[in-house]
Amino acid sequence: MADPVRVGMVGMGTVGQGTVRVLSQNAAEITRRVGRELRLVHVCVRTPSRLENLGFAGRVSTDPWALVGDPELDVLVEVMGGTDLARELLLAAIAAGKHVVTANKALLAEHGEEIFAAAQRHGVMVAFEAAVAGAIPIIKAVREGLAGNRIHWVAGIINGTSNYILSQMFREGWSFAEALAKAQELGYAEADPSLDVDGGDAAHKITLMASIAFGIPVSFAHCHVEGIRQLQGVDVAFAAELGYRIKLLGVARRRSQGVELRVHPTLIPADHLLAHVEGPFNAILVDSDAAGQSLYYGRGAGGDPTASAIVADLVDVARTMTADPCHRVPHLAFQADALEPLPLLPISEIQCAYYLRIQAENRPGVLAQVATLLAEQGISIEALVQKEIPGAATVPIVLLLQQCREGDLDVALQRIQALRVVAEPILRLRVENLREEESFS
Amino acid sequence: MADPVRVGMVGMGTVGQGTVRVLSQNAAEITRRVGRELRLVHVCVRTPSRLENLGFAGRVSTDPWALVGDPELDVLVEVMGGTDLARELLLAAIAAGKHVVTANKALLAEHGEEIFAAAQRHGVMVAFEAAVAGAIPIIKAVREGLAGNRIHWVAGIINGTSNYILSQMFREGWSFAEALAKAQELGYAEADPSLDVDGGDAAHKITLMASIAFGIPVSFAHCHVEGIRQLQGVDVAFAAELGYRIKLLGVARRRSQGVELRVHPTLIPADHLLAHVEGPFNAILVDSDAAGQSLYYGRGAGGDPTASAIVADLVDVARTMTADPCHRVPHLAFQADALEPLPLLPISEIQCAYYLRIQAENRPGVLAQVATLLAEQGISIEALVQKEIPGAATVPIVLLLQQCREGDLDVALQRIQALRVVAEPILRLRVENLREEESFS
Repeated sequence: MADPVRVGMVGMGTVGQGTVRVLSQNAAEITRRVGRELRLVHVCVRTPSRLENLGFAGRVSTDPWALVGDPELDVLVEVMGGTDLARELLLAAIAAGKHVVTANKALLAEHGEEIFAAAQRHGVMVAFEAAVAGAIPIIKAVREGLAGNRIHWVAGIINGTSNYILSQMFREGWSFAEALAKAQELGYAEADPSLDVDGGDAAHKITLMASIAFGIPVSFAHCHVEGIRQLQGVDVAFAAELGYRIKLLGVARRRSQGVELRVHPTLIPADHLLAHVEGPFNAILVDSDAAGQSLYYGRGAGGDPTASAIVADLVDVARTMTADPCHRVPHLAFQADALEPLPLLPISEIQCAYYLRIQAENRPGVLAQVATLLAEQGISIEALVQKEIPGAATVPIVLLLQQCREGDLDVALQRIQALRVVAEPILRLRVENLREEESFS
Repeated sequence: MADPVRVGMVGMGTVGQGTVRVLSQNAAEITRRVGRELRLVHVCVRTPSRLENLGFAGRVSTDPWALVGDPELDVLVEVMGGTDLARELLLAAIAAGKHVVTANKALLAEHGEEIFAAAQRHGVMVAFEAAVAGAIPIIKAVREGLAGNRIHWVAGIINGTSNYILSQMFREGWSFAEALAKAQELGYAEADPSLDVDGGDAAHKITLMASIAFGIPVSFAHCHVEGIRQLQGVDVAFAAELGYRIKLLGVARRRSQGVELRVHPTLIPADHLLAHVEGPFNAILVDSDAAGQSLYYGRGAGGDPTASAIVADLVDVARTMTADPCHRVPHLAFQADALEPLPLLPISEIQCAYYLRIQAENRPGVLAQVATLLAEQGISIEALVQKEIPGAATVPIVLLLQQCREGDLDVALQRIQALRVVAEPILRLRVENLREEESFS
């Protein structure tokens, strides 16, 4: 049997501990697959008590630079998080000729160009299956499984915390604040939940997905991000009445003018498979020309699920570390010299359908005014819910609009908002009908 | 840029035509990914008119042996179907040092051992992503994406024809015969639908899945197969009333005593994602120790979707054809010398929950007799539906049973069937609750 692959790991939080556990518990099964051992020989941990009960018998350092300088290591696994030290460590490990496996979506979304370029230069791999959607092998599916396709779009529920909160708002009728509190109690949300509920985490992930789907450089700065804090129970209920569910979606779509890259709460059809993805689960829907639609579902976070992805990356590294780099799967799915800097469309240029909730005075003619201002921008109404609330001074008018250019809607909304009969700021949500695009159209 | 990979293809039906189309339409996109061209240079077709409008400019033969003997070819794609000539052709191509890509599930399920052994001996790859679940990269997901996991079980909707029929029986209230006729009209079912509706096709696929999930030799002869012909609308309706949907499932499960390998109509919880997979779509649910449950969904058949999988295989071959064979992904996920011939359990040894429909005389005490005979075998009743039909001589008693050994149920059923009050053959269906197994238990 070939020599073991010698692995080092920096970070011993939930994911690090999961990785130690998976490598040790499934060692026999993994070796049966790979034909050689994946041997964890050196870890860096600030709190050595975290290694208790994991049965780890290798070297332990408290200084991460000791691993970068360890000549024995073939691969460095980075699960410490953060973007400053992690960036320096990975660049140094790459320069030292080590392959890298990382779960760090923030790092790759923000510094991917620099890191992948360094890896390319030094002929090493940077594997990041664990950076998107935990246990779901979505990077592999898109980068390899759909390699024969031109990908039209990717839409994903890729933040489990937000999805849990939205599931509970729908099922239990809770407010955002109540659902967040419960998520924190269950450990699904951090004490500071901003990265999850404000969309930043999903934006990191969809940015990476856009690169591997379309062969574009990593473009996090151009991702439009909106979170779920402003959502109200009433909108969840109206959406349900119209046949929709609200999910935080990451969307990356290729249009003739450029690429849409965005994260926002989104109405999706209630009978779509994606609408049934509940709680901490993730799912990604991919629309491509030959395969049509395909969907990938699983646990989006947690120690063991994320470790599953890290170990799969280690297996890939073990198999191709001796190969000529030009025959490996490219980091961003397309050969580095074949990446195309397609324009990233500003949010005003996207094409989408919309949901509007307009709180207006309870008197005849209001809807006619609203419809006229929409029509002036060429925007059609698809469906309408108007509640009779006897005696109320203002009532909600809820509209579903057909697909239009967001900039045109902005103009109409400005004018509608200025109407004297409109009482409060208009709520506008995006709607994705997730219909399959025609193949080879 | 490296030399093109020279591809030959035998068979020009729907899948062959789709493959020509995908390779030509997406040539630029594919080359951007692979860094070299996948060039279709030689095809075998009995009816040359099938090449019309495909823009194919390479060599055309009517004799498939001309491709096996073509020294220029690096890879042979087999999409002709059948098991006799296909087997001979592939073995000859392998012996001639050509890599093989095939969509032929029947061939691999029935002759996989011989074919993979030959490939192993000659150092070539036999890639078969297209053989299971069309466009869904499920072979890659299980073989590579979940390589860090010990897989507990796999359960899949892997025959689109049967799934379409069951969807229509549920949605439209059609009989099996009506739904089959519609499927034939739409081209979802063949004139002779046996392979689809009697479960043989699904059995071929789940047999291959069991091998790559557990690292066992290909064991089609031990797969228990039941189709959907005997299903009645009344059972679809009773299942719905109990909170279940009926789907044709392929199940492969590892137990301490051995492996369960079976295809049959199955009740699954109506609120499970798998229950929402409708029409010609396929989905496979995988339960494994680190990742937990993951699900893979997409188009299970058709020219372009199947071509998507074939081209992905060609890309994999292009990347690893120059690698040392010991560093390639093994055909059956585990190293050939690490396959374990785990015992395949006979159907009487499986553990499952069950649905029974007993047509019995409409008089007091019948249920007590049935429950007693079940209890004598240690089998508990989980739920019951008994319809009052005033004046009817016989009424259906519908039972959901808790998990038990099938052999024990067989004994009880024989005794219940022998009761004088039981009017017709008892219908027994299996129930899978699809609950996630505990990790590292």
